[in-house]
Amino acid sequence: MTAEDYPKPSVTVDVVIITLRDKELQVLLIKRDLAPYRGKWAVPGGFVHIDEALEAAARRELREETGVSEVYLEQLYTFGELGRDPRGRVISVAYIALVPAPLAVTAGSDAREARWWPIGELPPLAFDHNQILQYALTRLRYKIEYSPVGFRLMPEKFTLSALQKAYEIILGEPLDKRNFRRRINEAKVIEPTDTYHSGEGRPARLYRFRRDAIAEVKARRLFP
Amino acid sequence: MTAEDYPKPSVTVDVVIITLRDKELQVLLIKRDLAPYRGKWAVPGGFVHIDEALEAAARRELREETGVSEVYLEQLYTFGELGRDPRGRVISVAYIALVPAPLAVTAGSDAREARWWPIGELPPLAFDHNQILQYALTRLRYKIEYSPVGFRLMPEKFTLSALQKAYEIILGEPLDKRNFRRRINEAKVIEPTDTYHSGEGRPARLYRFRRDAIAEVKARRLFP
Repeated sequence: MTAEDYPKPSVTVDVVIITLRDKELQVLLIKRDLAPYRGKWAVPGGFVHIDEALEAAARRELREETGVSEVYLEQLYTFGELGRDPRGRVISVAYIALVPAPLAVTAGSDAREARWWPIGELPPLAFDHNQILQYALTRLRYKIEYSPVGFRLMPEKFTLSALQKAYEIILGEPLDKRNFRRRINEAKVIEPTDTYHSGEGRPARLYRFRRDAIAEVKARRLFP
Repeated sequence: MTAEDYPKPSVTVDVVIITLRDKELQVLLIKRDLAPYRGKWAVPGGFVHIDEALEAAARRELREETGVSEVYLEQLYTFGELGRDPRGRVISVAYIALVPAPLAVTAGSDAREARWWPIGELPPLAFDHNQILQYALTRLRYKIEYSPVGFRLMPEKFTLSALQKAYEIILGEPLDKRNFRRRINEAKVIEPTDTYHSGEGRPARLYRFRRDAIAEVKARRLFP
């Protein structure tokens, strides 16, 4: 049998973009302007063109629907259950990106609206996008425990308190300060800088992720 | 635009099956009996049927081409570069399985032959299957450092020496005995049994992976 003998599924890409903002994890969603699920919120995404690589398709859809570009995408998982799309057999390759600042967004293309949503206040999503989003969050929580992926969510320099707070937000639970500091030191992924943050109380030293730790994460490209 | 307006890619699944055998990592390959790459070795796999979930397709292809069934599959990565298949645009969802014993295999369907290959002696593979295989091995090496995935490759009970040897084979480098034992203890993933292995020298205690550690890996289902 050749490839042409088989009825073919459609292939889409979907992109989960996560940031830390206002002490919450937030995700970028678009309001659909087309059937099916017209008027429903969804993760940005769309059909892969026949002459387009998967990641290129993910970047194009993200740019068209939200105005966001230049983010570091990693493949997350491919969702291919039967019945996940009312248009027929549609297999979706999902991507994930962690971004530091709350990026400005502009709705376009098939999106009527685009905005950041706190993950605790999500609307019901189109297709199986709630499931895709939950998968992304689970993966993020799992990875952050042993990998310096946090560097993608933090500013360049940060206090240890701010880093602990970020971990607490991502993991959804309070962490013991002494344990957190011991573990982050043992992981050898951050280093002190010569600068201090002055706010209330005494000045707190600023840290940054080590270049070699970041390079290692990037080299692996095994999300993220 | 609807799904029907787009020319559609074909979608395949490919399955990388890895075992530890004769003190080497080995992978199950089939010799293709069809064009393209007829007579070349490849990872087992084939087209996803329109009414078939992705993992079901991976299981079916594996069973048809190699006789292997009842393995624990995890999704690895989706390969969709342009030009990776001479038949046209073909996107492949790759799966991986780690199996403990060297399973018996029987060639069938589109496979003329099926056998285990030591990863140090691989033939040139069809399509981008060398790349898929390298991706699988990199992922395995990365995961084994912080996760008890090794339980899928080991017999139920094993000596610490045998476990260290398995890690050395997978990582491709010798490990310091004292460091290895300290780290495996700290990870809290194995526990001693009441039985001993008697061979040369004094009897060595047998260990097993802890049930809760295995359950945690299984619950995550984030390879493997």
